[in-house]
Amino acid sequence: MFQLHDAFLGTSYALGELALSHVRLHGDARYPWIVLVPRVSLAREFEDLASGELDVLMEEILRAGRAVRAVALTQGRAVEKLNVGQLGNVTPQLHVHVVGRRSDDAAWPGPVWGHSAAVAYPPDALAMALEAGRAALGL
Amino acid sequence: MFQLHDAFLGTSYALGELALSHVRLHGDARYPWIVLVPRVSLAREFEDLASGELDVLMEEILRAGRAVRAVALTQGRAVEKLNVGQLGNVTPQLHVHVVGRRSDDAAWPGPVWGHSAAVAYPPDALAMALEAGRAALGL
Repeated sequence: MFQLHDAFLGTSYALGELALSHVRLHGDARYPWIVLVPRVSLAREFEDLASGELDVLMEEILRAGRAVRAVALTQGRAVEKLNVGQLGNVTPQLHVHVVGRRSDDAAWPGPVWGHSAAVAYPPDALAMALEAGRAALGL
Repeated sequence: MFQLHDAFLGTSYALGELALSHVRLHGDARYPWIVLVPRVSLAREFEDLASGELDVLMEEILRAGRAVRAVALTQGRAVEKLNVGQLGNVTPQLHVHVVGRRSDDAAWPGPVWGHSAAVAYPPDALAMALEAGRAALGL
């Protein structure tokens, strides 16, 4: 039985469910940032997914990229480069980060992971980001 | 026409060619680390690949993970967690990092990208790493 790791609850907001993955908006207003969590119990690595699941996950990574671009536009800060990462060094449940980057963002050109504490979304900006993300994902 | 970006030449060693990707061993002896560079001209993001190419790339990411585990064993330091990243903030040509991580490595639990200067492989260790990587990749 798949159960979302508690670590995601305090750091991100549910966007909805795609065919394979539970989808969340990471709560750092500095970066448009979506996290995909495949609903596969005990998965930690890509190799823990079946071949068909991996193909779906790759499609969902592309969709998350489009959604990240849409979230960015709600802040008037178009994405220049997507960053995709599957790390799991801290939270072992398999998850994929899709992050929109700009050359004027806080961590550029380094990775966002582990860079600095998140900056919370103001409430109105969060509502717009969630709406844009869900619309782009068809959720 | 695909041409490998010069930036890879000074930091990594060619392992060979898979169906889609040119494959390199990144020259940092602290981490078993393979870089896949899809031979697709002008690609910067996953979305620049065709759907069939993306499925092949995902297979090659899995193969690179197995090869990273094999490289790690030449140093007697089994991989505990794979990290997969597609960033390209510095070198825009599409490439995917597959890195073997351990809880006692230099950057743990943070990402390896941008952490610190690489530590060169001693010649014998490099030869063993290249041999193990090629064998695991069937190259």
